[in-house]
Amino acid sequence: KLPHNNGMNGNGVHHVSVRAHVSVNPAKLKSHRQRWNVRPSEMSKKTLNPIRAIVDGMKLTPNPEKPMIALSIGDPTVFGNLPTDDTVLQAMKEAIDSHKYNGYAPSVGYQKSREAVSNFYSCPEAPLEGKDVILTSGCSQAIELAISVLCNPGDNILVPRPGFSLYKTLAVSMGIQVKHYNLLPEKSWEIDLQHLESLIDDKTACLIVNNPSNPCGSVFTKDHQHKILAVASRNCIPILADEIYGDMVFPGCDFQPLAPLSSDVPILSCGGLAKCWLVPGWRMGWILIHDHNDIFGTGIREGLVKLSQRILGPCTVVQGALESILNDTPPEFYQGTISFLKSNSEICFSELSTVPGLNPVMPTGAMYIMVGIEMEHFPDFQNDVEFTERLVTEQSVFCLPATAFEYPDFFRIVVTVPEEMMIEACIRIREFCARHYRPRSQDSHDLDQ
Amino acid sequence: KLPHNNGMNGNGVHHVSVRAHVSVNPAKLKSHRQRWNVRPSEMSKKTLNPIRAIVDGMKLTPNPEKPMIALSIGDPTVFGNLPTDDTVLQAMKEAIDSHKYNGYAPSVGYQKSREAVSNFYSCPEAPLEGKDVILTSGCSQAIELAISVLCNPGDNILVPRPGFSLYKTLAVSMGIQVKHYNLLPEKSWEIDLQHLESLIDDKTACLIVNNPSNPCGSVFTKDHQHKILAVASRNCIPILADEIYGDMVFPGCDFQPLAPLSSDVPILSCGGLAKCWLVPGWRMGWILIHDHNDIFGTGIREGLVKLSQRILGPCTVVQGALESILNDTPPEFYQGTISFLKSNSEICFSELSTVPGLNPVMPTGAMYIMVGIEMEHFPDFQNDVEFTERLVTEQSVFCLPATAFEYPDFFRIVVTVPEEMMIEACIRIREFCARHYRPRSQDSHDLDQ
Repeated sequence: KLPHNNGMNGNGVHHVSVRAHVSVNPAKLKSHRQRWNVRPSEMSKKTLNPIRAIVDGMKLTPNPEKPMIALSIGDPTVFGNLPTDDTVLQAMKEAIDSHKYNGYAPSVGYQKSREAVSNFYSCPEAPLEGKDVILTSGCSQAIELAISVLCNPGDNILVPRPGFSLYKTLAVSMGIQVKHYNLLPEKSWEIDLQHLESLIDDKTACLIVNNPSNPCGSVFTKDHQHKILAVASRNCIPILADEIYGDMVFPGCDFQPLAPLSSDVPILSCGGLAKCWLVPGWRMGWILIHDHNDIFGTGIREGLVKLSQRILGPCTVVQGALESILNDTPPEFYQGTISFLKSNSEICFSELSTVPGLNPVMPTGAMYIMVGIEMEHFPDFQNDVEFTERLVTEQSVFCLPATAFEYPDFFRIVVTVPEEMMIEACIRIREFCARHYRPRSQDSHDLDQ
Repeated sequence: KLPHNNGMNGNGVHHVSVRAHVSVNPAKLKSHRQRWNVRPSEMSKKTLNPIRAIVDGMKLTPNPEKPMIALSIGDPTVFGNLPTDDTVLQAMKEAIDSHKYNGYAPSVGYQKSREAVSNFYSCPEAPLEGKDVILTSGCSQAIELAISVLCNPGDNILVPRPGFSLYKTLAVSMGIQVKHYNLLPEKSWEIDLQHLESLIDDKTACLIVNNPSNPCGSVFTKDHQHKILAVASRNCIPILADEIYGDMVFPGCDFQPLAPLSSDVPILSCGGLAKCWLVPGWRMGWILIHDHNDIFGTGIREGLVKLSQRILGPCTVVQGALESILNDTPPEFYQGTISFLKSNSEICFSELSTVPGLNPVMPTGAMYIMVGIEMEHFPDFQNDVEFTERLVTEQSVFCLPATAFEYPDFFRIVVTVPEEMMIEACIRIREFCARHYRPRSQDSHDLDQ
């Protein structure tokens, strides 16, 4: 009926008549869409969350006879056993009652709030002032801004393996290549420095160091951090230090922020309220700009300010409460959290280290334990994803397969769950492993003799 | 002394020896930086805020004999005369006391909070469910996500002139071209539809419609919006509707959201708590996905979800309070704000419309008045920037030059200031204009005759 129409709709005809009606010169008619064709952008398609991709691809059908225990969620608040301190809540209510924190703050945060953060983290070896702090919408945005200001498409960044997936998610979406450097489980997840250095080339824009580590729960020694800094220094690579779990380390272990150890390497240290103050949903993060030798100069600082203007910073109520949260939260609160995490980690580690086929690595901080699976002893499963999937089916215990952290044949346990839940989970994991463990063929051959 | 060194530092030498020490094959040595060269990314350099650029370039030295009156800040909370409602504050404190909103929410927001928004905005012609709502860190992030999901580098978007600068700031930083379509002051800032349509080409990814308008304070009629939709429909262009000032319209004027008027055009409507609830600092925004004909399909929805995972959504406390804020704030609160804005607008308009050389355009909503300057009558000044700069120097009144909105020879007045401040500002503007106004040469010639 309409041979000159593409058959998708009638707009082609209508369009020309309308154009004629408004007397547009037909010679000026530009090509335009003749039919609807709205597609998500390349960037949105390149924004991949490996944890979601893997978890969504798993058949997670718990055993109906056993209540589900999720050891997978990196949110310390879900079970209600780790509430934030009353001081923190009180500070929020006072900020609200003051009526002072409803309007726009500067996009990098109120000066007073920035100074509260700089005062909290400043030390003689790495002094900080308010101008060195950018407040962000959670540590995620801190990491996003830091990568955005340091890297161009075509550059590469160095990220730990195993490591938190957000670095890769953000970088790939921006056209930045990701190179993984290895962590060594046998050396308490220290960086394989030789491997790290071998990855550096002239397109390397940034080294991401995550300490204490998600998913490893490891904490680097001062000596190891000096060696990391030496690699960065001799290759002139700035560092993005993801220190969101800073100070969340077990008694007897000492967390050392990276910046005070360096005399030259410029460092953007990312942190926030999420973990130590147990309020991840409040989205209060920050970047601490450490630049003793003026290598970032004004360029990086101004770049961060510009980028912060895109979405105008974190919630002002939390900003208003920040000074009191940082200064007034009693030491007992932090100690309580840490001793709970250590106790649960020890329970989990001691239980699982006697399970044939499993090799847990004892953490010294953060809120995770990585557990190695001797896959050759579990022929029922191809890999860590199948192993953890079946652990749900049979035992209703869900641990994240470490493939989500680019590290197959391990799984990650979150140690923030209530103690009795941790104990029960370990019992079930033991039962599961006992059922599926097979001695190696050589061992079984030995038995046959 | 070190002829084989580039003179910038000694790392080249050191580097090789270290490499040798760790027994790396020299053939494998890759090029690497020999000196520090950390530069802000292209994206950060392309993230330009025209308002900041213009204001920072102005000499803003107030007259010491007159207290400063800033009519420039689009923040209704700065003078304390427009507090939010107690219901809103109470809802926040209840959310805090509930201890339920400290953990991570889904990156698109709690389902219950999304449903509170969809219930608030749903109507029979454009029904909404929770799944159609993405909660964001302020309306700024809503706009950022909407542009990010619809546009690729090399595409173009259509934005109003005069218009809010963030559209351009975001688009340019992403490599998206901006084309400005004209608004017509003589037609209450309606869109020049012929001009709009002439800009569309096959790289046009999105039409941004801002209604009610910043900086114009205009509100489109239903009839005009039908015509806008017709342009989008026959050219198959999706719309980003920035409706953050929705419902902020004067009595006798009717705000009509765009989506219910369309039967086919897919629309991402951006809004938030900032303006109607007078809490812009809380960074609670949203995208309403209107897609009656399934043109966005799952692609755009999934794209928005993926993009939201980059920084994980707005503060959970505000999310927890959202249902009560939307449902329990009394109508008198909104009415009070609106009648104040209308009254102040009328004062400002009636004062300035009798000032020779000025042409204010009476608004019908939002919180701004645009004032045209008959530059030919003010030979002391080259343009609106010089005009407003000198207005500060002489009268300590600061209005944003509309060059900041790509619209020279106008300035924008924010009408949220206390009434006595508005009256005083108008008196001073009148004085300023009287001092600098010159009849046109032809007029003066007439007088000479």
